[in-house]
Amino acid sequence: MVKYREVAVSEFFEKNRHLLGFDNPAKALLTVVKEGVDNSIDACEEARILPEIFVRVKNLRDDIYEVTIEDNGPGIERKYVKEVFGRLLFGSKFRSLGEEGIQSRGQQGIGISASILYSQLTTGEPAIIESKVKNGQHYSCKLYIDTTKNLPIIEDEKILETTKEHGVKITLKLRGSYRKSKGVEDFLKYTSIANPHAKIVYVDPEGKRHVFKRASEDLPKMPKAIKPHPHGIELGTLIKMLSRTKSKTLYNFLMNDFSKVGATGAKEICKLAKLKPSTKPSEITRKDAERLLKAMQSVKLQRPPTDCLSPIGEDNIIKGLSKEYQADFVTAYTRPVAVYRAIPFQVEVGLLYSSSLPSDQNITLIRYANKVPMMYQQSECAIYKAVANTQWRRYGVSHSLGSLPMAPMVLLVHIASVWVPFISEGKQAIASYPEIIKEIKLALLDVGRKLSRYLSAQQRRYARERRIKIFTKYGVEVANALAELTKEDRAYIENLIKKLIEKEGL
Amino acid sequence: MVKYREVAVSEFFEKNRHLLGFDNPAKALLTVVKEGVDNSIDACEEARILPEIFVRVKNLRDDIYEVTIEDNGPGIERKYVKEVFGRLLFGSKFRSLGEEGIQSRGQQGIGISASILYSQLTTGEPAIIESKVKNGQHYSCKLYIDTTKNLPIIEDEKILETTKEHGVKITLKLRGSYRKSKGVEDFLKYTSIANPHAKIVYVDPEGKRHVFKRASEDLPKMPKAIKPHPHGIELGTLIKMLSRTKSKTLYNFLMNDFSKVGATGAKEICKLAKLKPSTKPSEITRKDAERLLKAMQSVKLQRPPTDCLSPIGEDNIIKGLSKEYQADFVTAYTRPVAVYRAIPFQVEVGLLYSSSLPSDQNITLIRYANKVPMMYQQSECAIYKAVANTQWRRYGVSHSLGSLPMAPMVLLVHIASVWVPFISEGKQAIASYPEIIKEIKLALLDVGRKLSRYLSAQQRRYARERRIKIFTKYGVEVANALAELTKEDRAYIENLIKKLIEKEGL
Repeated sequence: MVKYREVAVSEFFEKNRHLLGFDNPAKALLTVVKEGVDNSIDACEEARILPEIFVRVKNLRDDIYEVTIEDNGPGIERKYVKEVFGRLLFGSKFRSLGEEGIQSRGQQGIGISASILYSQLTTGEPAIIESKVKNGQHYSCKLYIDTTKNLPIIEDEKILETTKEHGVKITLKLRGSYRKSKGVEDFLKYTSIANPHAKIVYVDPEGKRHVFKRASEDLPKMPKAIKPHPHGIELGTLIKMLSRTKSKTLYNFLMNDFSKVGATGAKEICKLAKLKPSTKPSEITRKDAERLLKAMQSVKLQRPPTDCLSPIGEDNIIKGLSKEYQADFVTAYTRPVAVYRAIPFQVEVGLLYSSSLPSDQNITLIRYANKVPMMYQQSECAIYKAVANTQWRRYGVSHSLGSLPMAPMVLLVHIASVWVPFISEGKQAIASYPEIIKEIKLALLDVGRKLSRYLSAQQRRYARERRIKIFTKYGVEVANALAELTKEDRAYIENLIKKLIEKEGL
Repeated sequence: MVKYREVAVSEFFEKNRHLLGFDNPAKALLTVVKEGVDNSIDACEEARILPEIFVRVKNLRDDIYEVTIEDNGPGIERKYVKEVFGRLLFGSKFRSLGEEGIQSRGQQGIGISASILYSQLTTGEPAIIESKVKNGQHYSCKLYIDTTKNLPIIEDEKILETTKEHGVKITLKLRGSYRKSKGVEDFLKYTSIANPHAKIVYVDPEGKRHVFKRASEDLPKMPKAIKPHPHGIELGTLIKMLSRTKSKTLYNFLMNDFSKVGATGAKEICKLAKLKPSTKPSEITRKDAERLLKAMQSVKLQRPPTDCLSPIGEDNIIKGLSKEYQADFVTAYTRPVAVYRAIPFQVEVGLLYSSSLPSDQNITLIRYANKVPMMYQQSECAIYKAVANTQWRRYGVSHSLGSLPMAPMVLLVHIASVWVPFISEGKQAIASYPEIIKEIKLALLDVGRKLSRYLSAQQRRYARERRIKIFTKYGVEVANALAELTKEDRAYIENLIKKLIEKEGL
């Protein structure tokens, strides 16, 4: 007899940890930091607090590391702490298909508990959690995950009286591998660039303290939640929405549960689908739903709303880049909101040029999705493809098409969306939708042109300086010659020439 | 206030369908067929039935396809049907870390229910399931998945009296895209090559019937389940095993719950770990477990057992390849069992050379993991890398290092393992562990040499034939000349030469 059983989702991910970014020790260490920091910044922003994040990575022995992440956020209500950290697929961020979505760093409610799972698997140690519950009071516990049940096991629960003002603090021990380049340090630096309203302090395994300063005192405006747009849903989702809706009639369902459907649109859809506006959603059959979907997708509607997105902003990109790199020239461009598969998205680009950077190497490309840096799978990412296939030579930059340009340059590309189309697990690269590539290229065009103007001006300035130098050098002799020819006073002519050079030099 | 909630695993995968191979319509269609066929062959083999699989892909309209998969397996017990198909992470194949493992096509208990989820999402249609429950009696139903609860919703349950002798039959309607090359047809052809004991009949969207014949009447021997080897486990897994074991003492735990630990090994481990053999597993602390793991990993033990693997076998590879391709030369090689991270695996290679194939194109490389063809991500796969970096020129084949050789050749590479290290979701490429690459290269060396001998023999034969042709042409004149010189009878000499040529020609 074949034996059947149910598998807990935590056992599934324990075995398939590569699906969530834990496929090797270096990536695992970075993933743990990333998941913690993402959560911290999200929580601070939601509570309208300027984020202050502390991260420490300590090498305990061999390949065992201790990671601490601490924030100044609002903390987590005591009754939820165990479940948020101790169960996979429990959280506040997951939005089902057909539900309202919102732009946030975390999207699944799986990252931090998966980090705890990984640390427990590799070191057998519990996570140590501390959360503010009210002013001056912290709740703390040690937490394991019972993978067979996907439930937390709690030890050493305590209420601490404290004067410390942090929100959540989490400490994990795990098998890792520390990389200097493209590792935790770069990740935090890049995070700080795209989030200049955050202060991040990082203590690395050598005990060195890195402070990524706050460069802006303004919290980004909160993105608004967005309902699905009729042009972007699938039949299965529509059927699910019909069965779950609180609206009493089809007409109300169309207007309440979707974005950009008004009275006219709703009526037109009903008419096209040959359904009465007063039909109860629960009475719509699958056959009806098929017609309804066709009608919804053929009717002309406004594009999805744009206030659901929270870009970094041109000012902040410039501030962020300038605080981490010495800039000779820096510019940024935020594109208008665009749409792929009825999902709004927005592309931003920052470009920094600096003679302090090496000019015989590839540029540094920093890729972001919803303000979170992507550190792996660069060449598979739509951002890389758009950059590598832009004609950088036109802008005066050394480049062979298909690879990154060679220049003393940092290029930042950000894509904000309610639903970022990652190519796979681990959220490290964005799928190459033509609409997305196109938007990135348009943004690059803009900063490319500005760079080109800067570089031409630079060249003109050099040329003029050289001319002036030569002129100055021969000024006296020219004055002599002119004095002889014109019989004017030599000193008077020399003075005229001097003034001329000074004017040119302005 | 932040709202928290639990997310059902089915909602998670509905939204993250790319994690399971449903990232685009062409891949989705192939994945659905693959999951169904994998299950069918697994079920038949377990029940010791020679598999007979029927697959039909029908284009209903636009991009909507109906897929039917039917087998002659044992069927599924009625009480389990709903759950096997209607719940994600419910099945018979998942093995937790620390549990016994077994080589099988499916490994998760997630593929077929995910296929149903995808079809429901894209078309809103239920799966239609039919399963033999006893001879002459079938159970049938329509099945939806309630994604909020990860539970089945059943309609139209029936018991059918039937004379038809199939096991499970499943019909799905889904959004797909049909590709002639590297699609369903190739997948089934390759499946049939690696499983020559199966008969597969396929009706394609144009109504054309393809029969992939059975070439062997012998069922492969069933692989044995294997316990974890002490050299390959992690601390978290050990701790979990200690808490779950039925063994009463550490000594018994070591011998019962692991492979290749005998009395001597168990005692040595206890001594090294400074733990009494009589210690109760439940009393071992995390600190103890750390020492225990170190001891387990430093003690010398036999390598993992090899009877847990079920290779295709050299004979069957040759039969399989020969039935689908016309062969001038065909050979195969099954390597001995090897080990990566204490997990046994086995590499097999088949090579078919045929003048009927194009000689100015890359070879056809067919990659298998546990007898299932991998159709995507070829260049990221250890198999591809090993093939591309083998010196094919040495064996007389046109090749530039780093890509596939150019020759009229089909190359089959199979990796069998209890736990195949796929690089990611969808099981389409194998991670490049050095041990795995090495084994593949050794296997290629063997068939490469055999090919080289064949090609040299071919060349010698051609050369000889050419010589004989020339000799025959000038035979009469040679006879005349010799007769004159030796004064022997001309006819006698001509006869001698003729005999000589005939002998050479043998």
